[in-house]
Amino acid sequence: MAFPGELSVGRIPVVGVGPSLEEGRWSARAVVGEAVPIWATIFREGHDSEGATVVVTRPDGKHDVLPMPCKDWGNSLYEVAYIPRVEGPHTFRVEAWSDPYSTWAHAAEVKVKAGVDVQLMLDEGVMVLSRAVKEVRRKAARKELLEQAIASLRNVDLAPLARLAPAIGEAVHEEMTERPLREWVSPSREYPLLIQREKALVSAWYEIFPRSEGARFNKKTGEWRTGTFTTAAKRLPAIAAMGFDVVYLTPIHPIGVTHRKGRNNSLKAEPGDPGSPYAIGADEGGHDAIHPELGTMRQFKNFVAHAREEGLEVALDIALQCSPDHPWVTEHPEWFTQRADGTIAYAENPPKKYQDIYPLNFDNDPEGIYHAIRDMLQVWIDAGVTLFRVDNPHTKPLTFWERLLADVARTHPDVIFLSEAFTRPAMMHTLARIGFHQSYTYFTWRQNAEEMGEYLEELAGESSFYMRPNFWPTTHDILTPDMQAGGAALHQARAVIAATGSPSYGIYTGYELVENVPRPGVEEHIDNEKYEFKARDWSQTELYGVKDILERLNAARARHVALRRLRGLKVHRSSNEHILCFSRHVPAEESPTGRADTVIVAVSLNPHVVHDAIITLDMEAIGLADDARLVVDDALTDATYTWGREFYVRFDPHVTMAHVAGVRAL
Amino acid sequence: MAFPGELSVGRIPVVGVGPSLEEGRWSARAVVGEAVPIWATIFREGHDSEGATVVVTRPDGKHDVLPMPCKDWGNSLYEVAYIPRVEGPHTFRVEAWSDPYSTWAHAAEVKVKAGVDVQLMLDEGVMVLSRAVKEVRRKAARKELLEQAIASLRNVDLAPLARLAPAIGEAVHEEMTERPLREWVSPSREYPLLIQREKALVSAWYEIFPRSEGARFNKKTGEWRTGTFTTAAKRLPAIAAMGFDVVYLTPIHPIGVTHRKGRNNSLKAEPGDPGSPYAIGADEGGHDAIHPELGTMRQFKNFVAHAREEGLEVALDIALQCSPDHPWVTEHPEWFTQRADGTIAYAENPPKKYQDIYPLNFDNDPEGIYHAIRDMLQVWIDAGVTLFRVDNPHTKPLTFWERLLADVARTHPDVIFLSEAFTRPAMMHTLARIGFHQSYTYFTWRQNAEEMGEYLEELAGESSFYMRPNFWPTTHDILTPDMQAGGAALHQARAVIAATGSPSYGIYTGYELVENVPRPGVEEHIDNEKYEFKARDWSQTELYGVKDILERLNAARARHVALRRLRGLKVHRSSNEHILCFSRHVPAEESPTGRADTVIVAVSLNPHVVHDAIITLDMEAIGLADDARLVVDDALTDATYTWGREFYVRFDPHVTMAHVAGVRAL
Repeated sequence: MAFPGELSVGRIPVVGVGPSLEEGRWSARAVVGEAVPIWATIFREGHDSEGATVVVTRPDGKHDVLPMPCKDWGNSLYEVAYIPRVEGPHTFRVEAWSDPYSTWAHAAEVKVKAGVDVQLMLDEGVMVLSRAVKEVRRKAARKELLEQAIASLRNVDLAPLARLAPAIGEAVHEEMTERPLREWVSPSREYPLLIQREKALVSAWYEIFPRSEGARFNKKTGEWRTGTFTTAAKRLPAIAAMGFDVVYLTPIHPIGVTHRKGRNNSLKAEPGDPGSPYAIGADEGGHDAIHPELGTMRQFKNFVAHAREEGLEVALDIALQCSPDHPWVTEHPEWFTQRADGTIAYAENPPKKYQDIYPLNFDNDPEGIYHAIRDMLQVWIDAGVTLFRVDNPHTKPLTFWERLLADVARTHPDVIFLSEAFTRPAMMHTLARIGFHQSYTYFTWRQNAEEMGEYLEELAGESSFYMRPNFWPTTHDILTPDMQAGGAALHQARAVIAATGSPSYGIYTGYELVENVPRPGVEEHIDNEKYEFKARDWSQTELYGVKDILERLNAARARHVALRRLRGLKVHRSSNEHILCFSRHVPAEESPTGRADTVIVAVSLNPHVVHDAIITLDMEAIGLADDARLVVDDALTDATYTWGREFYVRFDPHVTMAHVAGVRAL
Repeated sequence: MAFPGELSVGRIPVVGVGPSLEEGRWSARAVVGEAVPIWATIFREGHDSEGATVVVTRPDGKHDVLPMPCKDWGNSLYEVAYIPRVEGPHTFRVEAWSDPYSTWAHAAEVKVKAGVDVQLMLDEGVMVLSRAVKEVRRKAARKELLEQAIASLRNVDLAPLARLAPAIGEAVHEEMTERPLREWVSPSREYPLLIQREKALVSAWYEIFPRSEGARFNKKTGEWRTGTFTTAAKRLPAIAAMGFDVVYLTPIHPIGVTHRKGRNNSLKAEPGDPGSPYAIGADEGGHDAIHPELGTMRQFKNFVAHAREEGLEVALDIALQCSPDHPWVTEHPEWFTQRADGTIAYAENPPKKYQDIYPLNFDNDPEGIYHAIRDMLQVWIDAGVTLFRVDNPHTKPLTFWERLLADVARTHPDVIFLSEAFTRPAMMHTLARIGFHQSYTYFTWRQNAEEMGEYLEELAGESSFYMRPNFWPTTHDILTPDMQAGGAALHQARAVIAATGSPSYGIYTGYELVENVPRPGVEEHIDNEKYEFKARDWSQTELYGVKDILERLNAARARHVALRRLRGLKVHRSSNEHILCFSRHVPAEESPTGRADTVIVAVSLNPHVVHDAIITLDMEAIGLADDARLVVDDALTDATYTWGREFYVRFDPHVTMAHVAGVRAL
């Protein structure tokens, strides 16, 4: 068919293709091994049959071709799951086509049974199957199968229905589904799909201030001896033993002295106060330098190497702001905002002032600033850093980030960026769309079971094709009121939700010790190590049971692919508003083991009193019949339960706050 | 800023622009005078202010420029309504930009009040307003306003707050909103918006079989005398008097004799049976010919001219199928499907056969068939036909329709196509997307108040930018069970919903006479005029009250712009499941009169017993305060009521089934 002019649809229309972000404005994203549903709305005129195929073009230019079955006839929805095997930019298209075999088979079955047009239908069957043999390449045995069906259609010794039987039977049908005869093949446009390494989706972060790790207070002198990369490295085995796989260091650069903040954010630092590592830059250097008290570049690289040996990758904090002592302030005053009085503008949120921080003005010299930051990142990439946690990306232009992340992705596709954009949803989501691999979310502020459940389902939905959540119960900046008041029990409960509600999550050091005392008036820890050294007595962790829970959660995440995927989450009905129940489910055909994997999480969000609930499972969501019995192993207690569609849970904060129940394959 | 490479966002990001159908794959559509909301998600880094503008490019290449206010800060949503004034293809883009005035004004107000950086803020104000004077063209008086504000900022005799006041006052703010100082203007892509004449959205159709109008049965001979264009024209004044503006004729072409269907769809026609006008084509000609018994082309043109005089446009039925006697069957056998036995395939839905109909096979000679049909349409366009009702478009390729409709739109943009695609939603919606102006819908099968309310809201939603419903309570093919049983009362009620629930609706002749007897076993009228002549006694209409309701509904539609718009519909809470209440509301700024227009429709869907209900209005949806009193005039009874947020309705099928209540401006 050669129509002049442009048409918006092909001979067999394909509309509503996904996953697609504004029709390819941004790539949908997934990681190696993660099933990507690909869908389209496909239909045609009249009564003839159509079929559909997904064609994925891999980075090497080769194609993966998948039959795409109809999932929902009423809505003309076709869908198939694609499991990418290699990293890199892929594209996919959906091809719809006319299916002459299926059209014929449907009519032949009805008409031959009814004795209508019998010879005609048998003759047409010979024609369509002969074309299927001639026009589509297939293995000898499969060809033979079709030829036998043709011979049967021609066999005048048989009754009509018997002549027809092989041609519309299961074996031929299956072959014609796998290798169909396709007419009027009508492709959609190509849609981009970027495949990244698994850690972009699945990671367990542990945050430390390296200067605190091994810091010692000398009671005689009243002075602190700082921790170093060397002392901090001694803690790596313990972090790894808990099952984390990323160790995240707050900034390690020289710290400014001008307007340095003192302990508990006081405006004046006392002698010996180390200052905030986020006031970056001093005589010793800026973002590409190391604070001399932490060690040398060689010692940093040793730290990275030690981490590697423990199975930990190192994440560095990128806070693109300068102390007044940063070398750039004198070398490139044009990179900052000059006020009308000639001074350099410090950070402010009128009328509040932050005189220890000069924000960069990216509009003043975008090229110069860009290259300085790109070069700085390369220093750390070369030193072995593979992840960056980006501080407040939403205060810098998105054009800057998109360019930077695309540039790093081209040369170092293994490098992962985590966005700390605690701001309105449009910014948070668009930072993800333009290239951030992971994102802090509103998790920390979702307090009750209902809003937490809704948020989990939201994050597992549409946005899952570009925004990958990283859940943090606390950070060095955030200690919410409920975490201040909830004790060890809530620390356990929220660790459970963080580690099972999202494939990536993070723990700020000290969580095991239930450090939950706020600085009065702010939702932040008192004696925050942003402004001082902090030595911790790790022997005390056994008092709280939190460390044990973290170990068990990380072990469960390693065992269960269901906990390493973002989609496949379902919130179930709970009779108690304080108890949240959700499941994660990976069907057999999407599981690397070939077996379905299901984990049911039930958790109390009230750490103050005992709560119980009747849970009613949506059995379809976990691939089970309504009357199925489930044998589950609780990863938190090693207990085994037998549950049905309805089951009872009871959480006593003094005993346990949650079940993380792996469903046993029967 | 000159970044190399392609970026997906501009300096001030614009995402999620609408209305957009797959990012411009199809044009959004509206009619002259119909407000089109244009929206986008706009945000920026940090704390500085952004602003937004919509730029519409009209068919003449000139621009309409509209300030685009922030509608929902939390969701970063900007929106403005554009009211198109001319027909033709438009495009629009959204421009986001940095707003230095607003950034400064916000900081200055806070800081000068707090006594922080006072002189600096005043100086920066002089700078930004001086730029606003210099860089943006504005009227002398407006320029003067800004210069006075600058002078005030410089006036050292005043206190700081007084110096500042004019520069951040209402007048300057307003001017800076209308004609802003814009930096880093970041445009979205261009989105297509097709503007059509108002009748594409707003129309009231009346369907007739022209041969029935004036047909007479001669008792002596036992034969019928057919109606003609000339006798049918005599009925036009009555149709116009009811307030309809389109008269739709079922096919007027020669009718086949081979396998002609007899009365009540019997397989064998008796002598004198006129045959179905949908079995098109005979010795006398095909789709471009006129049935000789109806008249000549000259008489048809006279009919069209008479209709025009009555304010009626003429719609013709396009049924692209042939009787075995159609000239194309012999002239172009290749346009049909040849079966393996050499015969031409008739229509069938196995095992059912329709031997009086040969479907065209559009794939056999797409060019030939296309041009034959395009030429045929031109015959009718040249004869004065301005609307086509397309029979079963979903049984022909969409590529054919898209080409045809685009071609006609280029040369005859006034011609309107109504799609009769009673099929699955994807096909129905895509036919609208590719160019059909109006669409039959599932209205006829939405039986109860809840599903009707949901459907009305659905049609007024997302799809309203491309699919314009045309509601038919019955057609010559459809008489649903409830219409068979509901008597005059339900004929009244469903006419009310059709005429007020959609800007376009249609009535099949005889509705005024409550013709509701089905042929046993099918949802279709008995003695259907598809297969026979039908004479009606119009003097009997007064018995049913339906004609009076139709007249009143059409009059209300003429009075109320709210009834001539698709969006702005809201379903309100009703305490009785049999009673549906919805409103249509056009705010003052979108109304051609400059005054808001609101109509509240309450209607019972149960014609068998008295029902009453308490209605609770969503007052915000109709632009009123919760405690407002409404004086309403019922278009159906001329009664006036005073209602509040809650009001009582009672519908006795013997008295009235509905209120169509125009809210009086107070």
